[in-house]
Amino acid sequence: MEDSWVNSWVDSARRIGADLHLDLPASSGPGGRRAALTRALRDAVRSGRLAPGTRLPPYRSLAADLGVARNTVADAYAELVAEGWLTARQGSGTRVAMGVSPALFRQRGSAEPLRQGERVPRKAPPRSRGPRHDLRQGTPDASAFPRAAWLASCRRALQQAPNEAFGPGDPAGRVELREALTEYLARARGVRTEPDRIVICSGFAHALRLLFGQDRAGGGGVLRGPLAVEAYGLGFHRELLAAAGVRTVPLPLDEDGARVDRLARERAVLLTPAHQFPTGGPLHPERRAAVIDWARARGGVVLEDDYDGEFRYDRKPVGAVQGLDPERVIFIGSVSKSLSPALRLGWMVLPERYVGDVLAAKGEREAWVSVLDQLSLADFIASGAYDRHVRRMRQRYRSRRDRLVAALAEHAPHVEVTGVAAGLHAVLRLPPGTERSTVKAATWQGIALDGLTGFRHPDAAEEETPARDGIVVGCATPSEHAYGAALEALCGVLPPAEEPAPGG
Amino acid sequence: MEDSWVNSWVDSARRIGADLHLDLPASSGPGGRRAALTRALRDAVRSGRLAPGTRLPPYRSLAADLGVARNTVADAYAELVAEGWLTARQGSGTRVAMGVSPALFRQRGSAEPLRQGERVPRKAPPRSRGPRHDLRQGTPDASAFPRAAWLASCRRALQQAPNEAFGPGDPAGRVELREALTEYLARARGVRTEPDRIVICSGFAHALRLLFGQDRAGGGGVLRGPLAVEAYGLGFHRELLAAAGVRTVPLPLDEDGARVDRLARERAVLLTPAHQFPTGGPLHPERRAAVIDWARARGGVVLEDDYDGEFRYDRKPVGAVQGLDPERVIFIGSVSKSLSPALRLGWMVLPERYVGDVLAAKGEREAWVSVLDQLSLADFIASGAYDRHVRRMRQRYRSRRDRLVAALAEHAPHVEVTGVAAGLHAVLRLPPGTERSTVKAATWQGIALDGLTGFRHPDAAEEETPARDGIVVGCATPSEHAYGAALEALCGVLPPAEEPAPGG
Repeated sequence: MEDSWVNSWVDSARRIGADLHLDLPASSGPGGRRAALTRALRDAVRSGRLAPGTRLPPYRSLAADLGVARNTVADAYAELVAEGWLTARQGSGTRVAMGVSPALFRQRGSAEPLRQGERVPRKAPPRSRGPRHDLRQGTPDASAFPRAAWLASCRRALQQAPNEAFGPGDPAGRVELREALTEYLARARGVRTEPDRIVICSGFAHALRLLFGQDRAGGGGVLRGPLAVEAYGLGFHRELLAAAGVRTVPLPLDEDGARVDRLARERAVLLTPAHQFPTGGPLHPERRAAVIDWARARGGVVLEDDYDGEFRYDRKPVGAVQGLDPERVIFIGSVSKSLSPALRLGWMVLPERYVGDVLAAKGEREAWVSVLDQLSLADFIASGAYDRHVRRMRQRYRSRRDRLVAALAEHAPHVEVTGVAAGLHAVLRLPPGTERSTVKAATWQGIALDGLTGFRHPDAAEEETPARDGIVVGCATPSEHAYGAALEALCGVLPPAEEPAPGG
Repeated sequence: MEDSWVNSWVDSARRIGADLHLDLPASSGPGGRRAALTRALRDAVRSGRLAPGTRLPPYRSLAADLGVARNTVADAYAELVAEGWLTARQGSGTRVAMGVSPALFRQRGSAEPLRQGERVPRKAPPRSRGPRHDLRQGTPDASAFPRAAWLASCRRALQQAPNEAFGPGDPAGRVELREALTEYLARARGVRTEPDRIVICSGFAHALRLLFGQDRAGGGGVLRGPLAVEAYGLGFHRELLAAAGVRTVPLPLDEDGARVDRLARERAVLLTPAHQFPTGGPLHPERRAAVIDWARARGGVVLEDDYDGEFRYDRKPVGAVQGLDPERVIFIGSVSKSLSPALRLGWMVLPERYVGDVLAAKGEREAWVSVLDQLSLADFIASGAYDRHVRRMRQRYRSRRDRLVAALAEHAPHVEVTGVAAGLHAVLRLPPGTERSTVKAATWQGIALDGLTGFRHPDAAEEETPARDGIVVGCATPSEHAYGAALEALCGVLPPAEEPAPGG
């Protein structure tokens, strides 16, 4: 693409957004955010992060990216124009004033220009607070949080909660939420359960801690290792289990998903049946049945990590394996992908025999999960707002994936997107030997993403699960506004179709 | 007091409230709570929990106790009058209809009366969901949660939060909250710190886990045992530490607080300097200075559990020990007593050298504390609402304590209230040998409270810290409405001034 002014302000908006995000405190007064934005922009100009002549993004774009009112941006620009840091000209937008040179000003903390002839050593520009293009997997588009609908649920929850809700909490979680989840998970994910079998937790990692942790005096957790896991998965989960003294054993992966026929002495297996993480295939129906047969025959249990089960784009999502046998599967989900990881809210749907132990591991009172968030989510689900939000995000992420596929088809047709059309991330398979250099090039270009290799279990056998070069792209992470520029940058760092001949 | 109709409805309201609390789900539709209340009342009548002729509490009282609108109660009563379960007569209030006999009706789940002559075995009344009088220590009055003010903060937080707030959270906690706490704790508790030294957590127990837990792979927690603790304290904390492999060593307690001169090889000590828990005395000023001297000389650290520091009634609260030397004290607080334990929000104010380790123990992203609650609390503090709420609750709890002291002076002048006028609980010293029977009598009368002995460290030496008989009374726990009846019931179970002669 040519370096049009559109790209220029997209880039500025993104860069300004990335730089300023962490500098904007939620302030009490109405003028607080404007003041903070003004200060942050002034600092960015003064420090040289925004060079003289740089065109600033339109109010609308920066306001959307920062999650502030358009007037807030307009006021901040106006103030800085008045101070001489910016210039605004009809038809040319707002730019950093040409006469502004970082060396002419005092260090951060003083807004006064130096007297002529006075010099201070130029500071190194402050370390950037984040990557220019964030394509890391694992988080939804933070700019899409349904603020108004959530506030409405929050209001109803606060109005309707019985007083005891503000006392010590039930470690099982609020019954209102467990009832709403029972209905929702049955409808959306084919989960068969009842409120008494659900235990609320703060997310998937908390669920793993409750199941395998050594927290109870003298106890050894609800489950014991070794735990079979897929040959590719989240390193954070493996580390968490290792810290709890649980050995993980990799199951080979092929095009039908995990080789559950290879389950040996393990009594528990952790699977991502709807959408293998991160490689992207669903577990074959025969293997879904087979793992249940294994659990029944060997007294085993399946941990079903339903991390993005609602996000399937080419068909109705496949139901949870849990529905095949609720007594053999622990189904674990959260709002971290569907709503926001900022809520710290998840759930475990348990076979009856584990409920008591999990509650005992959790303690006598709710020590972790905000009861107000629980009540708000219960209302959010029961009122239909959750369905609406998931539907909206499904469309948005589907379009993100389509745009990625289209960009690759145009600019890098040799790079294949693996897995089914689903989820908040995609795996791009790369030519052999190119993953490391690609991730390095991305880093140089300010693109944050992960290589596929980091997800591979260290004990996975090459002859059973061949190591592939690839990158994991979080399509959902950027705001809608910043996604195009991120894609463009991504295409710029992908390896060419053929390796250049040595010295060629 | 005579058994006036006032007492009767107080009792009914309390009993109905206690019975129904857990049966009332926050429902989505406006009629949901009315339907749930109607169902719960109908079940209570049908099962015999509300006997024929029982006078029901006025709308206003039950609505306040349950935290529902008055109309909700009025509608539920009206519906049950229409169905024949209740009768309403001018001047006589609403009563359970005399003709209603539990044996005449089917079991719970069917609202239809049996045909005449038809019989079903009478079910045992369902187990009560809670004590009739809850005087357990540790929780604020749940009916006093500032719903409207919290909602206002929640609204502003949702409107003003930058988008990145809805992405993965900073494990240090939101900077908005850490800034608000820096200012508030300096002003209200004399804490000297800055936002970068504060780490948000989900409460005191979480802070202990982060400091002493073995969660990091290969690591041994931020601090190591043994940990010196006060000879009286919360058993839950001792158990949590024991489960983490930390030995606790009791420090003797006298009228000046913990004997910090007895600190030996320990490198850390856990204290409740403002208001010894649970016995109620403040740490003597000389000992405050002495424990800082010890920490400086021995490279030790003081854990300051400021669990109810804002609630002093006879004078301005004594400032935190942390203010004497911010590099030697870890100051830990939460909103569990000041606002509600349902929020799961607390903070650690750390010496600089521990910040990195605590953050490493917390992990790369915020895994526990709701970011929305953090932002709401930041606004709640910055807007002054927190100060207003604390002021209001201070008056309420002061009056609770005064009423307890007055009731004892009248009905049991031989029972002494120990400690300073502060906090949400009081310790009643009992004649030797009477604690166990008093707790037992209380249980029989439906009063939940704790004996003092359960708070004593099992290794505390009798010659240094004499064991005393006593009970710990949570004055703050009942709703305003229920407190009078709870006090009356309490006075009824206290031991007489002199032990009756054997056989006398």
